[in-house]
Amino acid sequence: MPILKSFVKGAEDTCFPLQNLPYGIFRPTPAEHPRPGVAIGDYVFDLSAVARAGLFEGPLLCDSTCFFQESLNQFMSMGRPAWKEARETIQTLLSFDDGTLMENLDLEDTVFVPMSQVKMELPAVIGDYTDFYSSKEHATNLGIMFRGKDNALPVNWLHLPIGYHGRSSSIVVSGTDLVRPRGQTTPGEDGIPQYKASQLLDFELEMAVFIGPGNELGKPVSVENAHEQIFGFVLMNDWSARDLQKWEYVPLGPFLGKNFGTTISPWIITMDALEPFICKAPEQDPAPLAYLKDSSRITFDIPLSVAIKPEGEKESVITQSNFKYLYWTAAQQIAHHTVNGCNLRPGDLLASGTISGPDGSYGSMIELSWAGSKEVKLESGGGVRKFLQDGDEVIITACCKGDGYSIGFGSCAGKVLPAIAE
Amino acid sequence: MPILKSFVKGAEDTCFPLQNLPYGIFRPTPAEHPRPGVAIGDYVFDLSAVARAGLFEGPLLCDSTCFFQESLNQFMSMGRPAWKEARETIQTLLSFDDGTLMENLDLEDTVFVPMSQVKMELPAVIGDYTDFYSSKEHATNLGIMFRGKDNALPVNWLHLPIGYHGRSSSIVVSGTDLVRPRGQTTPGEDGIPQYKASQLLDFELEMAVFIGPGNELGKPVSVENAHEQIFGFVLMNDWSARDLQKWEYVPLGPFLGKNFGTTISPWIITMDALEPFICKAPEQDPAPLAYLKDSSRITFDIPLSVAIKPEGEKESVITQSNFKYLYWTAAQQIAHHTVNGCNLRPGDLLASGTISGPDGSYGSMIELSWAGSKEVKLESGGGVRKFLQDGDEVIITACCKGDGYSIGFGSCAGKVLPAIAE
Repeated sequence: MPILKSFVKGAEDTCFPLQNLPYGIFRPTPAEHPRPGVAIGDYVFDLSAVARAGLFEGPLLCDSTCFFQESLNQFMSMGRPAWKEARETIQTLLSFDDGTLMENLDLEDTVFVPMSQVKMELPAVIGDYTDFYSSKEHATNLGIMFRGKDNALPVNWLHLPIGYHGRSSSIVVSGTDLVRPRGQTTPGEDGIPQYKASQLLDFELEMAVFIGPGNELGKPVSVENAHEQIFGFVLMNDWSARDLQKWEYVPLGPFLGKNFGTTISPWIITMDALEPFICKAPEQDPAPLAYLKDSSRITFDIPLSVAIKPEGEKESVITQSNFKYLYWTAAQQIAHHTVNGCNLRPGDLLASGTISGPDGSYGSMIELSWAGSKEVKLESGGGVRKFLQDGDEVIITACCKGDGYSIGFGSCAGKVLPAIAE
Repeated sequence: MPILKSFVKGAEDTCFPLQNLPYGIFRPTPAEHPRPGVAIGDYVFDLSAVARAGLFEGPLLCDSTCFFQESLNQFMSMGRPAWKEARETIQTLLSFDDGTLMENLDLEDTVFVPMSQVKMELPAVIGDYTDFYSSKEHATNLGIMFRGKDNALPVNWLHLPIGYHGRSSSIVVSGTDLVRPRGQTTPGEDGIPQYKASQLLDFELEMAVFIGPGNELGKPVSVENAHEQIFGFVLMNDWSARDLQKWEYVPLGPFLGKNFGTTISPWIITMDALEPFICKAPEQDPAPLAYLKDSSRITFDIPLSVAIKPEGEKESVITQSNFKYLYWTAAQQIAHHTVNGCNLRPGDLLASGTISGPDGSYGSMIELSWAGSKEVKLESGGGVRKFLQDGDEVIITACCKGDGYSIGFGSCAGKVLPAIAE
């Protein structure tokens, strides 16, 4: 297959070539309304302008208002046929062989906005955010730290993708600073809990699925139909205050240890863009129950990287992992989430849980420092870390290397600000 | 104080007299758009029609579009000064002494819709739903059942209001049927989990707060300012599948055991209406940390009742309790929820947790049947129950008895439908 090429200069050398076309919501300038766009090279392609010019001519999109919205929820709700039609139109308009835009310089000026100038927003109104716990290595590592080697995995872990509901309100887009949280921690010898700024602030390397059409309350989604629900993927940092979490989480799960902030990358990478990177998820033993039996075992080979950039210093890559290590697939997560009739809505977010893997590919500081028992060394000037310090920026990136092109996720970054004064 | 009287015939004999004035969202007929209304006697007072007639003349509401919305979120976001202004205007317009409506028969026809004819909707777009666990009696009862008398309360329980994030998408308004969920339960002797319709379906008697203005991410709400965040209260049934919950909830908390459905009553009873029923919450020992110190200990004396109505049979009241029994107050829940900087948004819902109390006032079937060890007898024809059967309608009601009037909550009802076929 010849390499697809866009007339947008240099796009093929960036993470956003014609093969990628991720969706996001952006403002061309801070004062303008948010609108849908697609990343191409160093530009954002303004879909509201494209739609206004009448260039979406397919049957599903020609009369749709989906690209005039301030979020992608409506487009997400339209399902795969509409996503396919949009991708075909956008890929044609941006390709070297098409003259529509190149021959209309006024229009060309309207539809391309330099990426350096835009402000990215959350891509969707996120009704509900669910966080899974689908890395066997991560669950095992934490189990060993807290319960010892013999009882590392919870007894239910191999039978179902464990998950819990997170907080939607505090999901922020990459680039948003994060205030170090305060809260209660485990009592000392006097038996009185302490109230203080978290001393064990951590990141969690995750990815998350944006849900497309969703399902009605009371109507489960089968594992076979689950991929039709996936609009695309983003990177996620599920910030965690381990000291707050430890004291609060029995018996109802994590709450204040997590809900002070969750950062996602702004560009949603579609299933179509990721198709060349399909691979098999790990074998499952024991075999899961029938409703979780995912014979395709489809997952994606997505190399992930986490860097810490201390205030005024260079960034240091501190860990690398891969989405393909996850034991439970996105399709299994969707089937499990809805098996009891729970409804998913367009724009809902399903996160993977911390993505750790074999051979020391740890997705969190608590694993890298093995519960604070050893130091993680940063590049010269950065010092060492057991957990995050004020001023640290955590930067998650991902890039899939194709044959002559890359599918990048952009970055998911956030800086830790000091706790507010008491 | 003389008893306030409305010109709406018989209003003073209902649960919705001039002292109540709860807010809800209704459709006058199924085909019409949802809009804000207030319950008065057997009528709904259409606030969109009142606003269109220019009768909100106060400075905060005269130019507001809040009553032209399909949810109460905008009105909630405006805060107590706007709520006070609205209440004063509505109370004046509906009072016996005011002629505005009585002298304008056309207008009178427009603004009153018989309650028997309307369709109630969810009162707000609920961004996040949090469920607390604030009844000491309930937590103790469950602790005794599962861990024995000596370790009944979790060690953190007396130090913080334990809570977790629930599912927003499956919150439904009273009157919506509920399909019995399917899911995984604890393995039998063969070590393989079972997939089946829940056999231990339960209700949970709760109340919930709708949040008003909310707070910015990173800016906690103090316990002293927490009441300014409370728009009002509804009744809630937090349906629970105990067998699903038991197998899944370690270590991340309840998930599929809860998120198949949560029912709320349609009318939001305001803090102003509840003021005459203020009382003191239980003493706290040990004293909580400073950020949770609620010197006012304000709570409300709200008698609660739960009935089961089997298909085709009479309803039987099976338990009674009271909101005032809760150990952690709504103000403490709000202060705790935000102490780490977590943001609340207008329309967010904070539920109390199951409201049990002393002397057998149990808020769930699992307590009434003591984990299925004894039968609960219904009225003649209703048989006995350990957990809920298909066709059972669970009806929660509440009514505060004032001096010559009642402040009622209406009802929070839902019927159990059989599980879907496999």
